[in-house]
Formats: sequence, structure tokens, C-alpha cells
Amino acid sequence: MKINQFVIIGLGRFGSSLARELIELGYDVLGIDKDEEVVQDLSQVLTHAVTAESTDEEVLRSLGVRNFDCGVVAIGDDIQASILTAILLKDLGVKKVVAKAMTELHGRVLEKIGVDRVVYPERDMGIRVAHQLVSPNLLDYIELSKDYTIAELAVPKCLSGVSLQDLNARARFGCSIVAINKPKGIIIAPTGNDVLTEKDVMVIIGTNQQIEEFEDSVIH
Amino acid sequence: MKINQFVIIGLGRFGSSLARELIELGYDVLGIDKDEEVVQDLSQVLTHAVTAESTDEEVLRSLGVRNFDCGVVAIGDDIQASILTAILLKDLGVKKVVAKAMTELHGRVLEKIGVDRVVYPERDMGIRVAHQLVSPNLLDYIELSKDYTIAELAVPKCLSGVSLQDLNARARFGCSIVAINKPKGIIIAPTGNDVLTEKDVMVIIGTNQQIEEFEDSVIH
Amino acid sequence: MKINQFVIIGLGRFGSSLARELIELGYDVLGIDKDEEVVQDLSQVLTHAVTAESTDEEVLRSLGVRNFDCGVVAIGDDIQASILTAILLKDLGVKKVVAKAMTELHGRVLEKIGVDRVVYPERDMGIRVAHQLVSPNLLDYIELSKDYTIAELAVPKCLSGVSLQDLNARARFGCSIVAINKPKGIIIAPTGNDVLTEKDVMVIIGTNQQIEEFEDSVIH
Amino acid sequence: MKINQFVIIGLGRFGSSLARELIELGYDVLGIDKDEEVVQDLSQVLTHAVTAESTDEEVLRSLGVRNFDCGVVAIGDDIQASILTAILLKDLGVKKVVAKAMTELHGRVLEKIGVDRVVYPERDMGIRVAHQLVSPNLLDYIELSKDYTIAELAVPKCLSGVSLQDLNARARFGCSIVAINKPKGIIIAPTGNDVLTEKDVMVIIGTNQQIEEFEDSVIH
Amino acid sequence: MKINQFVIIGLGRFGSSLARELIELGYDVLGIDKDEEVVQDLSQVLTHAVTAESTDEEVLRSLGVRNFDCGVVAIGDDIQASILTAILLKDLGVKKVVAKAMTELHGRVLEKIGVDRVVYPERDMGIRVAHQLVSPNLLDYIELSKDYTIAELAVPKCLSGVSLQDLNARARFGCSIVAINKPKGIIIAPTGNDVLTEKDVMVIIGTNQQIEEFEDSVIH
Amino acid sequence: MKINQFVIIGLGRFGSSLARELIELGYDVLGIDKDEEVVQDLSQVLTHAVTAESTDEEVLRSLGVRNFDCGVVAIGDDIQASILTAILLKDLGVKKVVAKAMTELHGRVLEKIGVDRVVYPERDMGIRVAHQLVSPNLLDYIELSKDYTIAELAVPKCLSGVSLQDLNARARFGCSIVAINKPKGIIIAPTGNDVLTEKDVMVIIGTNQQIEEFEDSVIH
Amino acid sequence: MKINQFVIIGLGRFGSSLARELIELGYDVLGIDKDEEVVQDLSQVLTHAVTAESTDEEVLRSLGVRNFDCGVVAIGDDIQASILTAILLKDLGVKKVVAKAMTELHGRVLEKIGVDRVVYPERDMGIRVAHQLVSPNLLDYIELSKDYTIAELAVPKCLSGVSLQDLNARARFGCSIVAINKPKGIIIAPTGNDVLTEKDVMVIIGTNQQIEEFEDSVIH
Amino acid sequence: MKINQFVIIGLGRFGSSLARELIELGYDVLGIDKDEEVVQDLSQVLTHAVTAESTDEEVLRSLGVRNFDCGVVAIGDDIQASILTAILLKDLGVKKVVAKAMTELHGRVLEKIGVDRVVYPERDMGIRVAHQLVSPNLLDYIELSKDYTIAELAVPKCLSGVSLQDLNARARFGCSIVAINKPKGIIIAPTGNDVLTEKDVMVIIGTNQQIEEFEDSVIH
Repeated sequence: MKINQFVIIGLGRFGSSLARELIELGYDVLGIDKDEEVVQDLSQVLTHAVTAESTDEEVLRSLGVRNFDCGVVAIGDDIQASILTAILLKDLGVKKVVAKAMTELHGRVLEKIGVDRVVYPERDMGIRVAHQLVSPNLLDYIELSKDYTIAELAVPKCLSGVSLQDLNARARFGCSIVAINKPKGIIIAPTGNDVLTEKDVMVIIGTNQQIEEFEDSVIH
Repeated sequence: MKINQFVIIGLGRFGSSLARELIELGYDVLGIDKDEEVVQDLSQVLTHAVTAESTDEEVLRSLGVRNFDCGVVAIGDDIQASILTAILLKDLGVKKVVAKAMTELHGRVLEKIGVDRVVYPERDMGIRVAHQLVSPNLLDYIELSKDYTIAELAVPKCLSGVSLQDLNARARFGCSIVAINKPKGIIIAPTGNDVLTEKDVMVIIGTNQQIEEFEDSVIH
Repeated sequence: MKINQFVIIGLGRFGSSLARELIELGYDVLGIDKDEEVVQDLSQVLTHAVTAESTDEEVLRSLGVRNFDCGVVAIGDDIQASILTAILLKDLGVKKVVAKAMTELHGRVLEKIGVDRVVYPERDMGIRVAHQLVSPNLLDYIELSKDYTIAELAVPKCLSGVSLQDLNARARFGCSIVAINKPKGIIIAPTGNDVLTEKDVMVIIGTNQQIEEFEDSVIH
Repeated sequence: MKINQFVIIGLGRFGSSLARELIELGYDVLGIDKDEEVVQDLSQVLTHAVTAESTDEEVLRSLGVRNFDCGVVAIGDDIQASILTAILLKDLGVKKVVAKAMTELHGRVLEKIGVDRVVYPERDMGIRVAHQLVSPNLLDYIELSKDYTIAELAVPKCLSGVSLQDLNARARFGCSIVAINKPKGIIIAPTGNDVLTEKDVMVIIGTNQQIEEFEDSVIH
Repeated sequence: MKINQFVIIGLGRFGSSLARELIELGYDVLGIDKDEEVVQDLSQVLTHAVTAESTDEEVLRSLGVRNFDCGVVAIGDDIQASILTAILLKDLGVKKVVAKAMTELHGRVLEKIGVDRVVYPERDMGIRVAHQLVSPNLLDYIELSKDYTIAELAVPKCLSGVSLQDLNARARFGCSIVAINKPKGIIIAPTGNDVLTEKDVMVIIGTNQQIEEFEDSVIH
Repeated sequence: MKINQFVIIGLGRFGSSLARELIELGYDVLGIDKDEEVVQDLSQVLTHAVTAESTDEEVLRSLGVRNFDCGVVAIGDDIQASILTAILLKDLGVKKVVAKAMTELHGRVLEKIGVDRVVYPERDMGIRVAHQLVSPNLLDYIELSKDYTIAELAVPKCLSGVSLQDLNARARFGCSIVAINKPKGIIIAPTGNDVLTEKDVMVIIGTNQQIEEFEDSVIH
Repeated sequence: MKINQFVIIGLGRFGSSLARELIELGYDVLGIDKDEEVVQDLSQVLTHAVTAESTDEEVLRSLGVRNFDCGVVAIGDDIQASILTAILLKDLGVKKVVAKAMTELHGRVLEKIGVDRVVYPERDMGIRVAHQLVSPNLLDYIELSKDYTIAELAVPKCLSGVSLQDLNARARFGCSIVAINKPKGIIIAPTGNDVLTEKDVMVIIGTNQQIEEFEDSVIH
Repeated sequence: MKINQFVIIGLGRFGSSLARELIELGYDVLGIDKDEEVVQDLSQVLTHAVTAESTDEEVLRSLGVRNFDCGVVAIGDDIQASILTAILLKDLGVKKVVAKAMTELHGRVLEKIGVDRVVYPERDMGIRVAHQLVSPNLLDYIELSKDYTIAELAVPKCLSGVSLQDLNARARFGCSIVAINKPKGIIIAPTGNDVLTEKDVMVIIGTNQQIEEFEDSVIH
């Protein structure tokens, strides 16, 4: 199923950012919020933006919400409104319903009432920022599994001029450098002759422990 | 500089998740919040958890905040408290100060008063979730540059049994599969003989357009 | 399953009345409310009465709620607390969970999260009082099906001294008088010779239309 | 006196349910509430629905309240408004005034100022639900007197295929089965040859003790 | 019945003034208010002063309110509390219950529930002050009937040295001077020879019209 | 100075009663209150009624307040507004300003800023009601001086048929009966032959002690 | 009269600054505020600091306020409390009472009730800052009369090296330079030979117009 | 730079006084406040007065704030709004931004974000009033440096008729009288022959200690 149309309910910091990005990516977005000011701020940006009470079934029906492929309940701080809106979206026949949970218990209720995907933005960002704080060269990362991670690391000064052969990451630490992003262009699957310079960013795959050891040994 | 001790001010959803993850990663964390209940919930988890008003210089001083390597201002909704706390941390001599901004204007003030890094968790998660929603096989991704992205994609049913040689991603779309995460283990820098199966996750590097075309053509 | 122990959460007008009646009927009742005053008023009446926040899993656990046969969520006006409490009771393993719904939408959520029985006390009482208002002799009634009703009717002055034979309800209206409650005792399955007097109460079975016609024709 | 027109003041859960049922039963209903939203929700349903302050004599007078046969004060939580409205209805000459009491003390005041009937919906529903909870086969019941009850009991599996003769309820427990509601139709005054099946509902008259013994002995 | 003991509920401006005056006149007064500060202010003045919620039957019972000859409900602005307290005093058996009404409708309820005397202090003082404003020499007055009034008038300068004979009030205006209060003592039933002086106060009886004409003609 | 026009600021219970009585007595009254509803209630009764903020000098000026003979500040509970309004009336040149004080301290301020007369309605009514409560036959009274009082006493049953000669009040108690108000008309300066009957009201002058002894001895 | 002891009531921004400066100047200060936190902050600084309600006569009496030479009512935003406190200070016999007025009307009341000096800090600072904004070299000034001002002006770059003789301020503009404050010391009554340099500050006396012309002509 | 146009944000006591004075001095002033009433009060006085939310960049832009020479953030009590408004003014390109600080910490933030001048009106007035209170003849003063002050002193009775020669201030105390303001005109640089009279005001320059000694010795 290809999703083309999104209805986002709740246009706070998370919801409005999500809505703006979807628009940027070329999708149609109907934004709904009960705060008129918030709606007005986004009315030029979104396909449609409406001030409405999302817990009123008639309102959602009259907005044609049932015709949307995907509904996102991004309500900020009102657990009750979040739950009631989510069940209405499901009952109205929205194909995919995603909802933001404020607490683990809230998340459990959302799952029980049939929400297809529950997201915890603040919790997830907390975890992501934690990793970036403890390893200052870490720019971003993907957890592939409980063990394996892809890390995007800034090349520090101490590695400037070092070739991958000299660095010998695979032999010494078990992790592989799968790409180097250089100012003049990206090198995918770099060879031992490729040389790091300070402005580069390297993409490395390995277990968490391997990457940690790599960072501790090589980066000062 | 190796950071070992963190003080986190504001233990809401973002702050507490950040604090818990840092503890998990083996660091010392002093958590401060003005809500006693919130502090009590985390008192067993964090190294120290204190109920205090973070805009009172004397209070921060008496908690020894100046000795911490890194301070994170994760205050939820009170812009004034966020700004005043951040300037106090800087003035007290905390080496690195990270602060969560609620709006772009708030972020500008934080930068002007010397905060080392400003984070926008809800905005960033909004963007991240947007990408995941529009491409249902996308599990996670890293934006390497304005053009290049590393994407972690679930292998769909229609690609089960296909070898990389047959897929021929580089030639057809210009993007490279740099790793395949299989239930029995990860394959880094896979060869043309490696075969995809439905439970696998592939890591692909390319421009946004290349990856989009890959997804649209190959995944049904 | 024979239920012996009840935990009632929410001790407002409905919850406290339910709790008192269960005690009267000889059962054990643990009452929980977040309002200390309400709890104190019932502390002499119930087996146990506790001031607690019912949306806190730890609190419910420590009160041993999982050991109760039946939990009733009788929370008055806070839909969020009602939903969160209900899911906690289910998750803690309470065998039968009954919950009071404030609106139809609230009721739908309760059913989705697994509540065994949803009650609407104010709605049901509204219906019941409506019937009593429009037929002043109606004391109480049971709806057996969409068509059939058992009605408890006060015998009006105009029927005083009339025998069932003369009244001839079955032949004239199709409804049967199955019992007459007289001051000196109840007559079950009365015969045609039994005579009504003004203080009597008759129990009549028939379709709604039959009973209505009976009332309109016979009672002035 | 035949009542044809009702004015309902207070359109909360109880009041609106009462008003809707009266409309369903074919009567005229004027609904009054001070909350405009509540009034609008019912404006399509009731004969008339008006936003008004019911403690203002002039307002009630101008709405022609005096011409109504019956007034119901169904105000939810404001004891003062309930009392003042009730005395106004009496003084304006409404023939029958029914009022909902929140507490026993409130009920005493309503009776003193001349209200014709005081109802306690939440208290009564609490009692009714208590009986249903402790005897799971009990669907509904009427208390005929302090001793005698008519109970509507679901026929349990263990009684499926049993004839009334074999059951012998009157001889063994002293209570009589006065009707059996079967999917295909109701049997009034059933004979010993009538056989119970699992989907049936039986109507039984007896003392509370007799019915309890019947349930305990016969239903497992 | 001679009243010796008073319980005053509500110690605002009216209630506390009433309570203080009763103490001054030599009676026992129990004062009750829900505001602790108010009670403390009067605790040295009254026989007893207690902080309590007067709508709680148990509280009133435990204070022994039933033993008081007279209860005054002087609650300031809470009509509900006033009504509920008044009915409790009556039900507890207080012989005479006096209550302050805020509005005419409130007064009607108080009378219906059996309050022995309803007072309207602000309304009555409004009327009294009105009379004093329009006739500047009027110090005080008693309305004997719809027509007749006793007025206490300051003797104006223009009447200084005038004898009652010369004034000839009875013949000219129909009203009688029944007393003259002079600095050196009161003269009851003064004769024609008694002479007015400026510091005197005269007590005059007549119809409202007679006194008005007397004032208009004689006093400049 | 003859006052003809009054401006009353604050139309609560005291102010509106005062305003209504002045209208009744035939005077012009401009009523001002900041509560629109209160003003509307009196708009048919008073000469003019205006919704306005009385602490705004421009507002008072534009209403022509300076042309009024007498201004009454009858503001209920806002001491600040009372003081500011009073000083504005004085400064605008209103000839006589009367103000209601809530506390003794408030009264002191009013006097200092030049208010011509300060009234304490609730305090005064408290005192007046106290006297009526302790002597049940007392209908009303005027305090002529610290010692002398005129009392209006209902004639009790025990004095019915007694002549003034037999009563001999002057000789026995020192107090004089100066008038008897009989259903058929008032008798001023009654003689010894006049006889009291139960529906009469007598007007008596004497010292407080004399009247008290008279009541105690003669009235049972 | 030499004032030695001050009582400051209201310890907000103005009051606390005043109190701290008086302590600095060597005087005794009793500070009173109803906010406990504010009092605690100053408790180490002032001679005494007390949390108290300043409108309660008993409280002020028990604090011995009458013995103070000077009382300052520096209450921030509560006009009523300001007025009542001021009259209490006067009535208790404080020799000199100074009070901060929030509005001109408030100031009028304070003067009427006998306050010795009324100050308007925000209004006065507004005026002072206005003058400094429009003439950027103006550091401070004193208004000697409606016409004459003493101004403290920073010597601008363009006047560096100019002697007073050359400047010839008296002849050209009519204003006199009465002092030059130089880094190495002040020159009072400077002569024509004294030379200005950029870091100097000159003190000039003249009419407002003269000084303005001086600034406009000489300073670029 | 000559400033001609001011925008003042926040029209409380300080801001409105500042705005009025700038108008008086002949400058253009745009006043902005979020309180409509405040704006209306000044709309006749200022060049323009607008009700607007000053933390909304679009609003400030549309008001053309960038074209103003000088912006004053005079917001009363909302530190957040003060900071956000100040940074917006700077970012919009207002040449000179002045802001009122409520606390020292607030002031620090304002300086960090680039505010050109931070003022503390209440603190400064507190200091100024303190000096005036402790020396009753002091009318006003300028602090030239940490040591030197110009003081404007009222000439007390005891100095009336004394010539400057006799007073001999310079020789005895080290301070100089640089001007005498007499009812008939100012004398700048007075000579020894000039004689003081009681209505005069003298301007004196000296160290704080010299002036204090002068006051203590000469003024009784």
C-alpha cells in the first residue's frame, strides 16, 4: 500500500514538524488542531489546516477523515483526547493509524485499541541524544540489532592524513568503514588507499563494543 | 575531553529518557527537577536525583553543579526557566552545556547566551517519523549530507530469494548495499552471491533520489 | 465462577452506593479513591478503604488488587483515569473488570481494551425514570426482549374490587397478570377469583403495546 | 392526570438520556441547560432545546414553563441551582415536579420545598449493579416488597434440556417460574412439560432467600 | 420561651456583629465558621468559637447544636451552604432557627424548609439609609404601620428657642411630639411650655405625610 | 440643602435596596455598577443605570457625576475600589458623599479622605437583630441615647384586656407608653382607660433597664 | 530630626533596593513582607526581616512599628494593602511615612490620609531614562527648577584636547562648566586653561535650552 | 547618531512614563503593549499605539520596527517575553536596544544576547530614595564617581542670612557651592558675598564624606 494522504491531529512541536516534512516530501497533509492560532500558523504550509475538536465523531466525519490513508495522532499532553481520537480514526476506517504515546501505559492502551504503530518521540530522542553526548564524534547512528550499529563519526584531527590501510580498523577492532563522506563527494566501499582528512565523516559498521573500542583507541 | 558526569535539569519525557540511557551507558547522572514526584520516580535509577529550583544560583552552587563535565537543560515547557538555567550553568563554569529548545526563537537565545549545543527533540523526531511513514520499509536512516543517506530497509517479500547480483542495485539505481543484517548474523560488504530473505534488513547508501527509485521499482 | 471479593475504584455516588450494597449482601469490598475525605466517610462501612492514585501500577500492585475476583472502575468524571485504571486491572490479572462509561465513545474504548462489562448508570436510569414518568402507575419494569416487558403496576382506585375474571386482561389485551402483591402476602399465578384492592401491586407480562393499551383502557 | 409535555432542566448524562427516551416514547420535551454546546447537541432530537439560566424566574416564565405538566430538575452537580430551580417550578405552577438529588441531605431539602418525587439515579444504579455482579445469571430484577423479588435469569448450560417438572422449583425452593423467554417467543405461565434451553431467559418469582437458594443449588 | 443560648453559623460582618452584641447583652454564644482565621479573631470574645463545616450533620451533632435554643444561619455568600445548614438545624431539633437570605428566592426556600424567621440585613439597611439620606434631620425611625412612623429628629437651628406651644405641631400638621431628648435628660410627654434647643432630639409620631410636611415647613 | 439627585455606585444587595427605596420615595437615582447583569436588572427601576468602572475618573466625569447632590459608594467587597471611587466623588465636587465600610480600618480611611458619612450596614443590622432575638416581643426600637430607648413591643396574650391604669407602667417600672397601634388606628398619648388587646402594638419609652424589667415582669 | 531607624513594608524590587542601600549607608532597617521567600532572601542583609501581613494592626503593633522614625510603604501592586498599611503607620504614630504610589489616583489617596511623602519610582525613572536616551552623552542630571538643569555629560571624542577657553561655553551658549571629573581627580570650578580629554565627564549648569544648544552645536 | 524615533514595548508604569516624556521632548514614539486597555489609554498621547504580541516576529516586522533608531523593552513582569522581544529587536536590526531588567540574572541574559543598555528602574530608584530619606535636605544628587557627588540641598532655616564667606564650606569641609538657586534666579559660581535665604537651594560638589560632614555640622 502506497500512502499518499496524511491527516495529522495535534500540531504541536512534534506534529507540526512531521506535517511540514511530509509536505516537503511531496505528500498531501490535512492538519487538525483545536488551537486556532496553531492552525493559522500552518495554514499556508499544509494542504489544509482546520481548527476542530478531534474527539467529536461528527467533526471528523464531516472532514472526510475516513478517506485518508494514514492518520497520525500527535496530540501533545491530553491522554484522553489522544485515546478517543485514535479509536475514532480506527472506527472511521482510516487504514493506518500512528499515535504518539506520552507514557508506557498510554502506549499500552493505544495498542489495545488497535493503533498500528505507537511512537515515543521524546523517549527516543532522549536515547539518541544520550549516545551523541557520550561520544562527541558521533554524529548519528542506526541500531541494526541489539549488537550491531552503523555509526556516522566525524574524523578527528588526530586521524587526519591516515589511510584506511594504516588505520586497519577491521583487523584491530573488527569494525568496517563502509563509506567516507568527503567535502568533494562520498566514497562508498573505500579501499585501503583512501586517506581520511579532518573535515571527513566516516560511516562505520560493527558491534557496539567494537565501535566503542575503536573510538577510545583511535580518537583522542 | 572525555565526559563522565552529567547533570540533567528537567526530568520530563525527554530528560528522563536521556538520563536513564546515560545511566545504562555507565555514566554518573545528577537529575534535577522542581517536581518532587518526578524526582522520586527516578531516585532509584539515577546516581542522584534532587528536587530543586534550577533558576536559583545558590541552589545550583550548593549542588556542586560546577564540577560536572556536561549540563543538559531539558526543561519541558518553561522558556524562561530554560534560559535562566542555561546562563547559570555557563556562568558557573560547566564545560559543555546542551539545551533543548522549544521554538526556533528560543533556540536563537540559547545560542546567543553561549549554549554549546541546542537540540530540538520534537522537531527532529517529527522529521524522522515523516520519513518512516512515507516509506514503509524504512526502519531507520542517517542523513550523511544534503544528498546522501544511509537507509536501513526491511527486505520485502518480493525480494526474498533474490541475490545481490540479480538485484544489481548499483548498476540500476546507483546505490550500494553495504550490509545485510540476517537473523543468524550481519554480513558486512556483501558480495553478489549473497541472497536476500524476507526477515533480512539491508543497509543501503545512495542519494535520496537513488534510494527512492530503488524502493519504488524493486519493492511492491 | 463465584465472586467473593470486589475492588471498587472511584467512590462517588455510584461507586459508593455499589460498594455499600455489596457489603450489605455479605461480600468483601476494597474501596479506592483519590479523595481522602470520601475514603474516610466509607472507612467504617467497607472491608477496606484506601486513598490512592489508581493510575499508578505500583500502587495497585502493592494493594494486592490482582487477587480480587472482580474490579469495578466507577470513576466519576475523568475518562483518562478510567481508561488507564481499567487497563491496569486487566493487565494485573483481575478476573472480571466492570467499568462505568461516561459517553458512548468512552464505552467503546473500554470494550476495546478488554473490559468485561461496561455500564452506563446515568443513561440507564434516565431511560428507567422516563418510563415511570409517562405511566404513573408503573412502579418498576423489566424489559424481557424488544417486545415483551414485565411491569409492576400499582392497582388504581378504579380497579379496587374487580376480580381478574372481570378484568379479563388476557382476552381483552393479550397480557397476563402473573402475580398480585397484597399487603398480607403475595399471590403467585392468581386465579380468576382473586380480587384486586387499591393497595395491591400487580405484576403483568405482555408486549409493550398490550400493556400500554391495558393501562390506557383500564386505568383512569 | 395524563402527562403529555415535559420540561427537563439539566441535560447531562441522566437528563439527556431521560429526555431522549421521552421523545422516543412519543412525548413533547423542552430541554433547558446553561451550557450552549449541550443544548446544540440535543436541538435536533428534542421538541425544543434552549440555553438558559434556570434559576432566573423571568427566564422560566418567558419560556412558558408553567404550562408544562411535568418538570424534571436533572441538574448534575450544583445543589444550589437544583433547589432554586425546583422551588421556581413549584411556584410557577408546574403540576408535577421531579428532581434528582445528589445527597440524602439535598433530597431532604427537595422534599421540604414540595418536590413531588425525588430520584437518586446513581445510588439506585449502584444498588442494581451490585445485585447483578453477585449473581452472574441475573439479568434484571424487580423488588416487589422487602421479601419478594421477580428475577430475570439467563438459563445456564447446566439447565439446558431440563423440563420444569424435573426442575420442580416450587416444591424444592418455593419459587415459581412465571415465564420463559425463548428465542422463538415468550411462554407465559409455562407448564411442567416446557423444557429450558441454554439461550432461554426465565422469569422467576420468590423471596430473596428462595431465589438465592435456587441459584446456588441449580446453577453451577 | 426565654432564649439563653445562641449558636451563630457564619461569622462574617453580619454574623460577627450579631454575635458580639449578644455577648454584650449577656448571652452565651457558640460561633461556627469554616474560616479558621475568622474563628480565631472571635475566640476571645465569644463563649465558644469553632472552625467547622456546618453542612456536615455529624459535625453539628458532635458540637451539641441540638441543645441550643436558637440557631442563626448568618452565612455570607453561599446559598447552598445556607440552605443545607438551616435544614440540619431544624432536623436536629433547634427550637428557633433564624436565617439570613441573600435573595428573595433564597428567602422563599428558607421559609419552605421551616426556618422560623428570615432576615434580609442588606436590603433592610438599604431602606433605612435611604430614609436617612432624604431627610437629613432624621436620625432613626420605626415604621409602626404602613401609615404611621415614629421619627427621631435632630432639632435644627431654626427651631432653637421655640416652645412646643408655638410650634403647635399637632394642630398644624397632625403629628405629636412624644418626647424630647435634651442633653440634661429626657422629657417624656412634654407640655406646651417645653422649649426646644439646638442640641435636642425630638421624638415625633404621625403619618409619613404629616411628618414630611412638618419637616418641609418647619425645618429650613 | 435639599437633596434631589442621588448617584449610587455599587448595586449589590445593599446598594440596590437603597436605590429602589430612593426611587420609591420619589427621587432621581443614577445607579452604576461594573457588572452588566446587575445593571440590566435595575434598568427598568432606576432613573438611569449604567455599566461602568467607577475608579476611572474620565468615566465618572462623562457621566456628569459632579452634578449630583449626593453620591453613595455602596461597593460590596472591593476596599480598593471603594476608596478610589470615594476620593473621585469628593474631588469631582459631589456635595455629600456617603460610603459603606467593610471594616473599621476601611472606615477610618474613608473618613480621612473626606467622606461625609460612613455606614456599616452589616454591623448595624447585626446589632439590631441581636436585640430582636433576645426579646421576642420587640418589633423594632430606636436608641435615643446611651440610656433611653423607644421600643415597639407586640402586646402579648397575657396583657390582652388590661387597661393602662391597671398596667401602671410608669409607677411600677418608670417607663411610659406613648402610643398604642391598634388594628383600627393609632392612639397617641393614650390614657389610663385605654385597654390593650392581643393584636396591638405598644410604643414605650424608658431606660434600657426599665424596659427590660417591664418585659420580664409583665410578659410571660 | 535625625532619622536612624527605618521600617520598610514591601520588599519587592524597589523596597529591597531601598532597604539594602539604607543598610549600606549605616542605618537600621526592619523589613516586612508577606512573602516568606522574599523575607528569607533578605534576612542576612537587613537588621531584621519579618514575614507578616501589614494590614493587621495587631501585627504591626507587636512588631513595635510605632518606635520607628520613618516607615516606607513600598508595597508593589496591591493598592488596598498600600493604603491600609499607610494609615496604620500614621495611626500608630510613626513620625514620617513615605509611600510608593502606583497611580496618580493612588497618590492622591495617600496624601489625603496623611502620608508625608509620596514617591512614584517607575514614573520618575521613566522620565529620567527618556532624557538619557535622547541625549546619548547625558549620564545623569538634576532639574534645579523648571528652567535650570545640572547635567553630567561624557566628553565626546570631538572635544578631546579642547580647552574651556576655546570652548567658551558661557559666551556662546550661556551655560557654565562647574566641574570636570577626570580619571586622576575632579576639578571644581575649572579655569579657561583646563583641557578636556575623551574619558572626562563635565558638569554643566544652564537652562534646558542652553544645554541642548550646547550639545547640538559642540557634540557631533 | 541622533535618535529620532523610538519604539517602546511594554506600556506599564515605567514604559508609559518613558513614552510620555519622549513625546514631551518632541520625539516620535510607537508604543506596543499586549493589553488593549493600556494601549487605548495612550492612543491620544503617543504618535502610534498598537495592541500586539511582541514575541511574534511577523508582528514586529509588519509594524516596521526595524526602521526605528531605538527600541526600549519595558515589559513589566514577564522575563521570557522580555528576552524574546529583545532578541527579535536586535535580529530585526534595531540600532540601539535598551531593556529593563527585573533581576540581576535577567540582566545578565539581556547583555549576553546583545542588548545595548540594561536598566534597573526599581533598583535605581530604591537607591536614590534611600539617599533622600537619610538626609532630609537632599533634594536630588548625581554620583560623579565612587567618591564625588553633586548634591542639591534645600537651605535650612539655620543658614538663612549666612553669607558664603561666613559659611566657608571649602575651607571647613572641602566641598564647594557651585550654584545657588534663588526664587528670583540662579547664581552660578556664587561669590563669598552671596547670602543664603531659607527658600534657596544650593548645589554643592564634594566627596560623600565632605558633604555628609557639611550637612551634620551646618544643618540642624
